[in-house]
Amino acid sequence: MINLCILGSTGSIGKQTLEIIQHHLDKIHVSVLTALQNADVLIEQAKKFLPEFVVIVNEKFYSYVKESLKGYSIQVLAGKNALNEVVKIPEVTHVLTALVGFSGLEPTIHAIQHKKKIALANKETLVVAGQLINELLKQYEVELLPVDSEHSAIFQSLVGENLKDVHKIYLTASGGPFRNFNYEQLKTVTPAQALKHPNWSMGNKITIDSATLMNKGLEVIEAKWLFHLNIDQIEVVIHPQSIVHSMVEFQDGSIKAQLGMPDMKIPILYALSYPQRWFNPTYKKWNFITHPQLTFEKPNLELFPCLDLAFYALSKGGNASCVLNAANEIAVEQFLKHQISFLQIPKTIENVLNKVDFIPEPSLSDLFESDRLARACALAYA
Amino acid sequence: MINLCILGSTGSIGKQTLEIIQHHLDKIHVSVLTALQNADVLIEQAKKFLPEFVVIVNEKFYSYVKESLKGYSIQVLAGKNALNEVVKIPEVTHVLTALVGFSGLEPTIHAIQHKKKIALANKETLVVAGQLINELLKQYEVELLPVDSEHSAIFQSLVGENLKDVHKIYLTASGGPFRNFNYEQLKTVTPAQALKHPNWSMGNKITIDSATLMNKGLEVIEAKWLFHLNIDQIEVVIHPQSIVHSMVEFQDGSIKAQLGMPDMKIPILYALSYPQRWFNPTYKKWNFITHPQLTFEKPNLELFPCLDLAFYALSKGGNASCVLNAANEIAVEQFLKHQISFLQIPKTIENVLNKVDFIPEPSLSDLFESDRLARACALAYA
Repeated sequence: MINLCILGSTGSIGKQTLEIIQHHLDKIHVSVLTALQNADVLIEQAKKFLPEFVVIVNEKFYSYVKESLKGYSIQVLAGKNALNEVVKIPEVTHVLTALVGFSGLEPTIHAIQHKKKIALANKETLVVAGQLINELLKQYEVELLPVDSEHSAIFQSLVGENLKDVHKIYLTASGGPFRNFNYEQLKTVTPAQALKHPNWSMGNKITIDSATLMNKGLEVIEAKWLFHLNIDQIEVVIHPQSIVHSMVEFQDGSIKAQLGMPDMKIPILYALSYPQRWFNPTYKKWNFITHPQLTFEKPNLELFPCLDLAFYALSKGGNASCVLNAANEIAVEQFLKHQISFLQIPKTIENVLNKVDFIPEPSLSDLFESDRLARACALAYA
Repeated sequence: MINLCILGSTGSIGKQTLEIIQHHLDKIHVSVLTALQNADVLIEQAKKFLPEFVVIVNEKFYSYVKESLKGYSIQVLAGKNALNEVVKIPEVTHVLTALVGFSGLEPTIHAIQHKKKIALANKETLVVAGQLINELLKQYEVELLPVDSEHSAIFQSLVGENLKDVHKIYLTASGGPFRNFNYEQLKTVTPAQALKHPNWSMGNKITIDSATLMNKGLEVIEAKWLFHLNIDQIEVVIHPQSIVHSMVEFQDGSIKAQLGMPDMKIPILYALSYPQRWFNPTYKKWNFITHPQLTFEKPNLELFPCLDLAFYALSKGGNASCVLNAANEIAVEQFLKHQISFLQIPKTIENVLNKVDFIPEPSLSDLFESDRLARACALAYA
């Protein structure tokens, strides 16, 4: 029996997780639900799934949640630090981390240190601290499974295979809503336009990242740490239909891929069921009549320099990816608030990468400090 | 160290096998080479790979081969029965059966009974006697690996997976040279036209089978026995680029595929290296610039009824697939000799299927008799 702690249960991934696991309640018990501030959804989820604990990070909603769950034997906690505590609960066997951005790092570390199996939907954890996380996973002998559809595709393609046989991986990218835009058109795109992803329904931050291709850049960095690859073993390919979720090329010339309709419930379920596969009554079938054509093209790095910046940060190593991520988080926030333009997002990131001191072998506290500095620097730049 | 017996070393698969394993002579020793009648190629191969045994099936070339290999410590055998003997040689660990048609069955059975690991390029073995072969594999605890690119793709997609999780498989088919032909055009196609396969370079028999889609029909039957599937778990999809070699859909909605340029050396090598993958210096890389588009469509069963006949024979069971195969072998021969037209091939097969007595649970000798009867019947029909 899996006793699951869902960090970020009211976001897109959290909701889809609850949607799919309700078909597997004989195998999964929800132990913990957490939300940043979406109290109503959290309360509703808690009443339905009856976890032992809920966390509302924003403390001003604490009494509302507490009051609403009166009469239920559910313990209500509040505050950011509660996230670090609930992952330690002895009964919890699995932690699905679906927090947004840098905030996912600390609770994930605590979960690893308490030997919980990790289903990772928060790519920033590995972007910021891939090396440290890998060391912890080794030290605590913990298994971490990717929830991101691309990394799940790579992981699934590698089942039963040997990592040493991997020649390279191809991370597919839809190209986002602006794939066919030119420079002039990109100048004036609005947050509303950027939030209309052609294939995937996701949270705001990741949808903007998809439009800039930074999402793919972060995934390149995530893939490096998940699969222990060199930078030249990772290639990004634009695949507008989002059917081929990613591919692995082996040293014998064989390529393996995982495919399907864009549906996060498939990789979510797999991260929990692995090494088994469980029956999924919800999936939309891919078929050759509705998708008779799969196309591939090179990404345009001139129009979408965020992808290049991510490769640059990864090649630089140290705290560079942490700085990249922090600058991006701020820039995306600013874009969503109409404070900067779409094309200023990469400019902010590049500027911050040049300004924050490079640390070749950062400790965890160095990373927290780099994150803080990069955010301040990004805010100052705007 | 693999000590390999190659049954049919002078055919297309045999030649490609020798081509690829010359890069792995530290891991594979060629113990036996056999040819039907291509004495010169056999002699050349023998001088290069220095096997302990060569077999020339057509006895009239025996003294020529024997004379040519004088001075080499290579034992030369002749006659069809020698194939059944060389697979029993104690030193031989692996048998790659690349014989054409029904002739592959008997030596494969002997190889299994002598506990040799089988790399099966002769799909007719499973088409004719799938149930019997599976029983033998179980009884003798022998592993059989597919060399056919589609079945290798399925096999590779299933590595580390559980057969019980398979929802269905998609066997891809190029559609052959006549994919876009109409009925009028098909009436007059010649063997020369049919032998021009758009993607694969193969032997004559299989190339004609590709043009009629019977090749895919035989593969459906082969897949049934290889992967223990029900008939409704197997779907054929036309994929003209021959890049996606086949796919598996699992019960959780995930689809896995194996891809690459059409190159038989990849599945040949894998059948020998499995569960490892070995470095392949020869493979043509698939890339997104040369193949930016992959398309899929339904097969046209009205114009290419051979595929339907194969499904019919498989659903009927018993000796029906054996009869189908024998009738097809004769019909293809007749077509190649300009004795019947392209559209008469399925007519011959259908006629023979209706004429030869159905045996629900045939023994091996029943199958030999059904094969003989079906051939006679096909010859009489023309």
